[in-house]
Amino acid sequence: MCLAAMRTITYNPEIPAVEMIDQRQLPAKLKLIQLNDLEQVIDAIKDMAVRGAPAIGITAAFGLALAGRVSGADTFSTWEADIRNAAKRLMDARPTAVNLRWAINRILGIIASMEGVAIGAAQNQVDQYTQMMADEDVEINRRMAQYGAALLKHHASVIHHCNTGALAAVDYGTALGVIRYAHESGKTIHVLVDETRPRLQGSRLTAWELEQYGINYDIIVDSAAGFFLQRQEVDAVLVGADRIAANGDVVNKIGTYPLALAAKASSVPFYCVAPHSTFDLEIAEGKDIPIEERAVSEVTSLQLHDRKVTPEGASARNPAFDLTPNHLITTFVTEFGLIHPPYKENIPSTFQEANS
Amino acid sequence: MCLAAMRTITYNPEIPAVEMIDQRQLPAKLKLIQLNDLEQVIDAIKDMAVRGAPAIGITAAFGLALAGRVSGADTFSTWEADIRNAAKRLMDARPTAVNLRWAINRILGIIASMEGVAIGAAQNQVDQYTQMMADEDVEINRRMAQYGAALLKHHASVIHHCNTGALAAVDYGTALGVIRYAHESGKTIHVLVDETRPRLQGSRLTAWELEQYGINYDIIVDSAAGFFLQRQEVDAVLVGADRIAANGDVVNKIGTYPLALAAKASSVPFYCVAPHSTFDLEIAEGKDIPIEERAVSEVTSLQLHDRKVTPEGASARNPAFDLTPNHLITTFVTEFGLIHPPYKENIPSTFQEANS
Repeated sequence: MCLAAMRTITYNPEIPAVEMIDQRQLPAKLKLIQLNDLEQVIDAIKDMAVRGAPAIGITAAFGLALAGRVSGADTFSTWEADIRNAAKRLMDARPTAVNLRWAINRILGIIASMEGVAIGAAQNQVDQYTQMMADEDVEINRRMAQYGAALLKHHASVIHHCNTGALAAVDYGTALGVIRYAHESGKTIHVLVDETRPRLQGSRLTAWELEQYGINYDIIVDSAAGFFLQRQEVDAVLVGADRIAANGDVVNKIGTYPLALAAKASSVPFYCVAPHSTFDLEIAEGKDIPIEERAVSEVTSLQLHDRKVTPEGASARNPAFDLTPNHLITTFVTEFGLIHPPYKENIPSTFQEANS
Repeated sequence: MCLAAMRTITYNPEIPAVEMIDQRQLPAKLKLIQLNDLEQVIDAIKDMAVRGAPAIGITAAFGLALAGRVSGADTFSTWEADIRNAAKRLMDARPTAVNLRWAINRILGIIASMEGVAIGAAQNQVDQYTQMMADEDVEINRRMAQYGAALLKHHASVIHHCNTGALAAVDYGTALGVIRYAHESGKTIHVLVDETRPRLQGSRLTAWELEQYGINYDIIVDSAAGFFLQRQEVDAVLVGADRIAANGDVVNKIGTYPLALAAKASSVPFYCVAPHSTFDLEIAEGKDIPIEERAVSEVTSLQLHDRKVTPEGASARNPAFDLTPNHLITTFVTEFGLIHPPYKENIPSTFQEANS
């Protein structure tokens, strides 16, 4: 199997099943898992077999299609109730990334317009709609990649946090998509890969993707990013996002905020690459975005939970995301182009124009 | 064995041997190792069986005393040459912490004043001098602890980076000594312990010390410090130092710089606790302090080098320290009291007064 020739999440209504790369096994093993019911989809999201805001969104959409397929309902209203129940449970799987809610609401919107359709036809419509969403995700990433790559010099050294590549989406990725596109269009890019404790999405997943694309990189511990920024060895920092407030405050993987501070201190541009679906215009400021706190075992043990490094009984805190205030973001890269400050005006207007 | 009732490094001229806790084994095992020649002492420093600027300094002093004991020289000048040769080799063991050089130069100074003394008497004098240096280290730490503890409120939440406790000194410690003294004098201190990748001095060593002292703590990944600072859940940040330039620029464990940026951004005081011996008045600015870059395996594998987490052939960078510019340091805590800005004037004058 080669990542460049596959999608990381697919849905097959014939089985029916959601199939995905089990990201917990990488880089040691590239293994596909097949999820046959809603329970398994929820577990895969919670335990981070799949992660990354866009990937979680599409997985939830596929999960609803799957729930609709395996529903034993014999009337449209019980079938719809099954899906709504599944939607409620999926919504709680992870609280921070807004793409989850966005994707679920799109499916619920489609179903709300179906009243009176036969169950089989409704199932087919939902299946097709989720496939369209997956295709759209890839297309959006490619568009963002082009907009973003234009920001990078012909020879550029960048810092990248967490994993925002094909694994974090259906294919191609957000911030890592920008890096990939720049590389594919002939630029010479070197990536300093934040390892991204506690779950090491950088050293496990991003390094693995970069190996496959043939892009040069060095892994660093998260706290070393400031060292390289301060020495002016970095041209740009690129991150994705889990949720962006209407004013441009960014909630993303823990460690994004100190990275943005260090970029600012060295006057290095800090780009946030995220699709429309990651912007939550209903939330005015980042402080109102819920931040998930995950199991302390992710901190007290090393990946993946099988090697204890702390004293017996050690306690820990494990916020999975942090908040980067809008003034630290140089530019947003979206599928509708770049968004520059002032964000309070320019974010809503970008998406209003796009929707009109 | 209980840490509170022992010194972490000792020297026994009778054997002769340097004995120390093997910090690589903690927290799983509290194991003492005995070093019987210079080679073993150098290896212990290089491979970080012992680490922490003051601890490295005293280890080097003990290493010279040991080299003097095991020297087969039969004239003073060949004995002195043996020690000077040992000093040269010890000096290169680790480049960043200045305490190593400071301790070695003190011993060489003593020997330079001995011309004509019998070898046995010279050995005794060096032995005694190193014991005095070790006693002095403990005394200095206790004094710094008192000065520093006065900066903390009765109920205080602090962030601590790396390990600066008894393990990083002969006993008591620098920044962690301040926390310990505050606790022993009845204050309620909660410590957010930076795990301190790549070698996990925080989650392995500091957590282990705090368990023994009965001080409350939570371990966090290094990149989560900004999250807690931004939420105003922290009253102070406390760090040690490996070398401080005459202008107050601090070189300390990688991750200190972004931590200082995050403290500044939230207006939380950032205290650097370090003895006179860590200040290098011959270096005007931090940018001239050499920064050690250690093996990439510390990054690509998890502690202690036995579990590979990255793809085959992954490359990495591993600077062990970073530079925190003086404007991010609120106050220095030394054995001569607090030093406030402007540091360019106040650091030299503090130590000139102390020496006069």
